[in-house]
Amino acid sequence: MQMTGSVSGMREHVTRLREKGHRIGFVPTMGFLHKGHISLLERAREENDVLVVSIFVNPTQFGPGEDFEAYPRDMEKDKALCSEAGTDILFSPSPQEMYPAGFRTTVSVSGLTEGLCGASRPGHFDGVCLVVAKLLNIVQPHRAYFGLKDYQQFKVIDRMVNDLNMDTEIVGLPTVREPDGIAMSSRNSYLTKDERKSALVLSRSLEHAKRLVSQGVREASTIEAGVREMIGERPFTAIDYVSVVDVEELTAVQTVEGRALLALSVNIGRARLIDNAILEACD
Amino acid sequence: MQMTGSVSGMREHVTRLREKGHRIGFVPTMGFLHKGHISLLERAREENDVLVVSIFVNPTQFGPGEDFEAYPRDMEKDKALCSEAGTDILFSPSPQEMYPAGFRTTVSVSGLTEGLCGASRPGHFDGVCLVVAKLLNIVQPHRAYFGLKDYQQFKVIDRMVNDLNMDTEIVGLPTVREPDGIAMSSRNSYLTKDERKSALVLSRSLEHAKRLVSQGVREASTIEAGVREMIGERPFTAIDYVSVVDVEELTAVQTVEGRALLALSVNIGRARLIDNAILEACD
Repeated sequence: MQMTGSVSGMREHVTRLREKGHRIGFVPTMGFLHKGHISLLERAREENDVLVVSIFVNPTQFGPGEDFEAYPRDMEKDKALCSEAGTDILFSPSPQEMYPAGFRTTVSVSGLTEGLCGASRPGHFDGVCLVVAKLLNIVQPHRAYFGLKDYQQFKVIDRMVNDLNMDTEIVGLPTVREPDGIAMSSRNSYLTKDERKSALVLSRSLEHAKRLVSQGVREASTIEAGVREMIGERPFTAIDYVSVVDVEELTAVQTVEGRALLALSVNIGRARLIDNAILEACD
Repeated sequence: MQMTGSVSGMREHVTRLREKGHRIGFVPTMGFLHKGHISLLERAREENDVLVVSIFVNPTQFGPGEDFEAYPRDMEKDKALCSEAGTDILFSPSPQEMYPAGFRTTVSVSGLTEGLCGASRPGHFDGVCLVVAKLLNIVQPHRAYFGLKDYQQFKVIDRMVNDLNMDTEIVGLPTVREPDGIAMSSRNSYLTKDERKSALVLSRSLEHAKRLVSQGVREASTIEAGVREMIGERPFTAIDYVSVVDVEELTAVQTVEGRALLALSVNIGRARLIDNAILEACD
């Protein structure tokens, strides 16, 4: 595994690889890798000639008072995991390398970024778009892989890449869960033992919602109320949002027809956790 | 010369050319080509293996009430000129091809876009950034060429390309002028014979300003006043701005020290014309 922290170093690798006709698979991460990330690495490893992974805790996607400083980091462990998963090149730039003095450019996607996490985290998706645009331009991958736990992020990035005609296929892969159902997240490390018990309610409430739909419930408000009630009963939980939305536009729907997305965000202790599920009405 | 109006068609050309290791030079234009454009084509032709030209009157860089509909177009003549200049591929997409339904992404550069034309044309440079980002991603050129008559545009694009780590070298080439000094512009076609006479004052006022500086004048306000007076004496002229600014930041300067940019915009009849010159204080 080769490592570089500089844009020019990464660019040299890319030029060489592209000249050889290698297909590049890319997994951008903020590090503190878990099995969710590893599933992306494995898929990218399978589908491409070369696997590039980036580790960069991107300051521009954290708002004031959010957990940029506290965000968990473990570079040594991440290196070992990347190497083990067959990474060819690990790109880990500094904030100064990514945002040198004089930086003035922003990239925004409207509409898709207004609800859900966008409403609670103003500017978050601008930061995501900016860093992903930069990383895709630096790494020039044929395919880039993202986890669908961050469903809104996936849709926003996919929109940006299409709108800007970036020459990369954006691949979304299913959420990886602990055996007890908790979605893998670097932020799970913030949870105390008791908080973690409460956090089980997120995935369980999604399962509950799926059952409601399978039993014929179609009203979004009924489903959301059921989920909110279930979460509200557990200690340490503070709901940010619970929303049934259109799978493409991410706008609120009144009734589940065909497929809809149930997305939720809940603060538990210091951790802001998100999870989601597709609801399918089969009639 | 090959021609395509589709993004996928252009992409196929690019993939083939890049696989062969060809270096791509690119000149994005809004068509109605004049000698200024041709100088860009010639330089790009010299410096690269392949010359790609785009012709696209980009709606997103025109504001309400501006001349998008009226903007001069002559595709047959442009084709002949491109072919004559050794263009390999002419890319001329439709607005629908560039901005399909569901488009939601914006790209902005702050600071550099606030003064000069940015102040008179709100949103103009967002439109420029967007279309240039898209075109660079579609054509994937090694070098892209822009005229320095649009100095602010050049600086904004160069900033965007650097900030987003786009893998293209941005080249700015000197303004090409008619024998009488008028800067080449597609919008010169709006001028009546008498208006064109008045338009001569733009380049002449720039020369006047250079003389003032060579005579030891350093105060920006004195230079601007001299230029304004000279332009104001001619019929049909309505000054939009006359500004001495920093060559990098495009912010107003009080005194010319080293190099400064004198930029101006004047409405003459239906035509909004711009021109600029570098002022150099040699002491």
